[in-house]
Amino acid sequence: MVASAFIAKEHRDAAASSVFAYGSGDRRNRRLDLTGFLIGRRLANREGQGRKITATEGVPAMGLDGLGSSAYGPEAALSIMIPAGALGLQVITPIMAAILVLLALLCFSYWQTIESYPSNGGSYTVAKENLGANAGLLAAAALMIDYVLNVAVGISAGIGALTSAVPQLHPYTLELCLGVLALITLVNLRGTLEAGLIFSIPTYLFVASFGGLLLFGISKAILSGGSPAPIVAPPSLPTATEGVTLWLLLRAFASGCTAMTGVEAVSNGVSAFREPAVKYAHRTLAAIVLILGMLLAAIAYLAQVYHVGAMEQTKPDYQSVLSQLAAAIVGRGFVYFVAIGSLLAILSLSANTSFVDFPRLCRLVATDGYLPRAFAIPGRRLVYSVGILWLAGAAGSLLAVFGGITDRLIPLFAVGAFTAFTLSQTGMASHWLQHPGNRLRLLVNGTGAAGTGAALAVILAAKFMEGAWVVVIAVPCVIILLKTLHRYYEMIDRQLRDEGAIALRGLEPPIAILPLQRWDRLADKAVRYALMLSPDVVAVHLTKLEGPDAEEHVGRLRRQWRNDVELPAQAAAMRPPEMIVSASPYRSFAGRLLKHISEIEERHPGRPVFVIIPEIVKEHWWDYLLLDSSRVRKLRRALLRHGGPNLAVVTVPWAREEPHPEEVIAKEEPQNQAMAITSAQPV
Amino acid sequence: MVASAFIAKEHRDAAASSVFAYGSGDRRNRRLDLTGFLIGRRLANREGQGRKITATEGVPAMGLDGLGSSAYGPEAALSIMIPAGALGLQVITPIMAAILVLLALLCFSYWQTIESYPSNGGSYTVAKENLGANAGLLAAAALMIDYVLNVAVGISAGIGALTSAVPQLHPYTLELCLGVLALITLVNLRGTLEAGLIFSIPTYLFVASFGGLLLFGISKAILSGGSPAPIVAPPSLPTATEGVTLWLLLRAFASGCTAMTGVEAVSNGVSAFREPAVKYAHRTLAAIVLILGMLLAAIAYLAQVYHVGAMEQTKPDYQSVLSQLAAAIVGRGFVYFVAIGSLLAILSLSANTSFVDFPRLCRLVATDGYLPRAFAIPGRRLVYSVGILWLAGAAGSLLAVFGGITDRLIPLFAVGAFTAFTLSQTGMASHWLQHPGNRLRLLVNGTGAAGTGAALAVILAAKFMEGAWVVVIAVPCVIILLKTLHRYYEMIDRQLRDEGAIALRGLEPPIAILPLQRWDRLADKAVRYALMLSPDVVAVHLTKLEGPDAEEHVGRLRRQWRNDVELPAQAAAMRPPEMIVSASPYRSFAGRLLKHISEIEERHPGRPVFVIIPEIVKEHWWDYLLLDSSRVRKLRRALLRHGGPNLAVVTVPWAREEPHPEEVIAKEEPQNQAMAITSAQPV
Repeated sequence: MVASAFIAKEHRDAAASSVFAYGSGDRRNRRLDLTGFLIGRRLANREGQGRKITATEGVPAMGLDGLGSSAYGPEAALSIMIPAGALGLQVITPIMAAILVLLALLCFSYWQTIESYPSNGGSYTVAKENLGANAGLLAAAALMIDYVLNVAVGISAGIGALTSAVPQLHPYTLELCLGVLALITLVNLRGTLEAGLIFSIPTYLFVASFGGLLLFGISKAILSGGSPAPIVAPPSLPTATEGVTLWLLLRAFASGCTAMTGVEAVSNGVSAFREPAVKYAHRTLAAIVLILGMLLAAIAYLAQVYHVGAMEQTKPDYQSVLSQLAAAIVGRGFVYFVAIGSLLAILSLSANTSFVDFPRLCRLVATDGYLPRAFAIPGRRLVYSVGILWLAGAAGSLLAVFGGITDRLIPLFAVGAFTAFTLSQTGMASHWLQHPGNRLRLLVNGTGAAGTGAALAVILAAKFMEGAWVVVIAVPCVIILLKTLHRYYEMIDRQLRDEGAIALRGLEPPIAILPLQRWDRLADKAVRYALMLSPDVVAVHLTKLEGPDAEEHVGRLRRQWRNDVELPAQAAAMRPPEMIVSASPYRSFAGRLLKHISEIEERHPGRPVFVIIPEIVKEHWWDYLLLDSSRVRKLRRALLRHGGPNLAVVTVPWAREEPHPEEVIAKEEPQNQAMAITSAQPV
Repeated sequence: MVASAFIAKEHRDAAASSVFAYGSGDRRNRRLDLTGFLIGRRLANREGQGRKITATEGVPAMGLDGLGSSAYGPEAALSIMIPAGALGLQVITPIMAAILVLLALLCFSYWQTIESYPSNGGSYTVAKENLGANAGLLAAAALMIDYVLNVAVGISAGIGALTSAVPQLHPYTLELCLGVLALITLVNLRGTLEAGLIFSIPTYLFVASFGGLLLFGISKAILSGGSPAPIVAPPSLPTATEGVTLWLLLRAFASGCTAMTGVEAVSNGVSAFREPAVKYAHRTLAAIVLILGMLLAAIAYLAQVYHVGAMEQTKPDYQSVLSQLAAAIVGRGFVYFVAIGSLLAILSLSANTSFVDFPRLCRLVATDGYLPRAFAIPGRRLVYSVGILWLAGAAGSLLAVFGGITDRLIPLFAVGAFTAFTLSQTGMASHWLQHPGNRLRLLVNGTGAAGTGAALAVILAAKFMEGAWVVVIAVPCVIILLKTLHRYYEMIDRQLRDEGAIALRGLEPPIAILPLQRWDRLADKAVRYALMLSPDVVAVHLTKLEGPDAEEHVGRLRRQWRNDVELPAQAAAMRPPEMIVSASPYRSFAGRLLKHISEIEERHPGRPVFVIIPEIVKEHWWDYLLLDSSRVRKLRRALLRHGGPNLAVVTVPWAREEPHPEEVIAKEEPQNQAMAITSAQPV
């Protein structure tokens, strides 16, 4: 033990092996593990399969967006029809029928997609594999923007409904939005399974209460021969100011299509499902589409028989269509409040769908080298934490910028989703073209592509001036960003690729250089390490002082160097290390040292240079505050950047407390797993 | 050249010497140097003397606080007398006389202090050297708190006066305060000379305009036989509600003493003056006290003859005493607005005194080891930038917390200054006691100590409940903090002290360990550097994958290792490096590596371990964003902290662009100096 002989404080557990008996529990983890408390313990790779979801958790995890859209889809379509008065309410049937047909088409199409891409059938993969990388990036960019918008709009819609119910909360709109965002983020950082389990309560409550309510309304309507008496009469419909034109119908259709966003979620997230993933994904997709379709149909029918139309949101006595319907069917009693409450809950939680799919999409894109690799690294709970945090950051910024009121973002919605729909369907159609003998399937996906493409065109035309142009600008920007990143990573990869064998001829012995501030144990240890590395050791002392003070200081250092370094080295028959004293008129440090290094390199051309930097190890948070190491950090960075290809930096730590490697392991590999650590296998 | 043979991108200028021809100007500095633009070029040590100030800059740099207090001192005393009505105005003469006597006493005392402590005669030094370390710390803590308060209160008072003149600016109070703070900070970061030069305009404008105005008033008063007719009549004095008691007089005296804060500034900042520093400091002190004394006397006299009393600040028609006086003497014309404008300017700039003295005080305290050493390092402009920034941060936080309205902090004022006064005077008295034969001087400083001590007692008693108790609590807290820091730094110093010679026996050859992710040029370079350091090289590959993917990946890596490393090493007759493959079920990195290092250390007890970490050099800001190195950073930190005393970390840089050491030097040592760089002197 070379070092421990005289560095009294630098201990090492004599029985090094016992240090790793980290199951014994004799050392408590002294620090509060906040991350562990919030997010849960680190999960092992092999726990991954058990963390995956079935249809039961799949519907809440991926269906919140789809089911929640039953609240705003019909409302959006009816809003467009307000100028048409009572007549507008009658044409809702053909519009909703068209939407339901498209929904069914999408369901069949995605059913096939999941089957063909059982590992991951997202629009990005399907478009990339069948239509080329650019189509894939277009789908990815459109979806990414849509996911971010979905989070911001979903949360602010839910909180908006809450604050209109409880006006006292209105001043805290932004805080409430960010609070819900933080909650969803945290739950998703814990894992998709947790998200599915936690959010299943509001989801199934919504389905049960609203489903029951609508069913009760339909039975009442049928029993009364199609003209039921409302318990709370809805406000009378406004008088018509416009006739029903084709353009009005198309716009109503385009608005109603927002009811479909969220249907692609399942196919984008197949990898979240337990094996057999295809089966569970199919079940989840079917459940979501079935519930959504029935809700939409029921709402459209009941709106007609109860004469419930949309109201201007700006009016003070504004009520949503679903609120009017529920009041008309059961009155403003207990059932009404449970139904409306669960609706608000799933609206604000509909952001969850984005949290399940966005990180998975980013992971695929990152694996292809279009995003930083950190997006593809599973976090401590086996979800892609970086993607989750980026989504939360982007949506949080949107909410903050708009003060929690994102109404103006709603027109931007649906463009991304329908772009992805169209690309995915076209990709699948192209897929079937290349695999002949699947005519029916080609027909399904082809019709799907045509239908969603037509819907996209209508949506773009109808909403372009309202704000959809923003998406038309943003999507290419995202694509350019992704491609730039790709070029960057490809360049790095190309530069790093190493085909040949290692070149070992002409390895010259290194020179060790050490910046010397004063003679202390740090310098002592650094000199010893320098002597281990090289017979040629040069210490550089930069003096910032001038005048008599400096001379006294340098004189003392020289005496110490002579007595404590040169003489012992001579006694040990080693070449004594050299010391250079250099005045630094500008108190510069890195530049001066680089200059001396360059001079030394000139004297010994071709020899590698190791710069030895001793560092006091920071053990507590106050060490970081009190031991200023910014100068050492800057020096290290300047040396690495500008020291040339023959320079390496050696950090020699000087610890004041005992090392505890077992703490690092215990933190990274939790103890409560009865899992033997695979022992190292030498080659 | 070992490396450059096949690392195509890692260049090195062949003519290394030409790299340092940095006076030639053939390489423009491509990056915008924002710091240089804001603060100015880096100054050489030997420019320090030329950067120092004379009395001309000394009065604005250090006198703004003192002169500005002429505005609030008399006002504060008169405010206390409001309940006494017209009678209160008459007793202002004895109060002001007492204050002027104390001021003269202080001036003589500090005159002597500067003479005896020509290098630095601050209260901290004087108290420490004559009364012991604790007295010094008490003075330092009191002064530090006072300086921070002075900045916050001065700026908010100035801006408060501005916003009451221009009410439209009122919503931006905090922004304006922080703006002025930023301006003063920036000017002081440029240097004390600049601060003196820039702030001399408002200072001398104030002295000239207000001096002239008061002189004009006095001559009018004398010509009219003591009863001049005011041009704008001041509001009539309120009727008395209380009699004049001794307690009222004492409180008025205590409040009036705020006029004296700022007088200690010169003695605390002697080191800022050019040689002969004592002469310039004396001149500055004399000028400040003389101007201040005359202003105070003139204000007290004119307030009586014009019947100007203080008004309640809460009243809507509130006018300050000086505003009433100026209006009474010259009317609300051009001279009035110039005088009041310059007064507002020096009030908001009175914070400057703190910026000159606080960093110097912190430097002295840091040199004694009671503050982090960064406070004692001169910045690029030879001022103590860390102290300046801390003062700005502390005052900025106070302003932010109080929203830019710091009226409530005014009672806290003056306690710190008078504590420092008393300690400094007592210290000087003790100094003369130890140097007999200076009876007159002992008398001056002794009387000064008694006078300021009495004033301190009155201030504490009069203002304790108003808020001075905060200072009484804060000062001990600061002292405890300073002492804790001292103990910490002493402990570090004790642990680092190295008395004996270096121990060179038993230096065993090191082992090189390198974490291996994949086989690329980074790994290639790392292996070569490892082979330079040690004959025993072990590469550790941690695989996070499991199943067939992992086997394929590991198999390929093993083939590459065999062909590209082992075979060439055998051909070069070297011991082939070993590779260990280890599965990491929890995707952990640092902990795993520490475990393997510990196993290797067990196999080779006592041998030092060098862990080689290759690193892509980050050259542009986007590299920091796109090349995530948080894992490498965490690994490095864990290795240094928990790797034990025999471990060092070697960073092998891999640069994609040419190094430019001359840029570092040009940045740290500006080119526009015709100063030959002292060449290195070998021992």
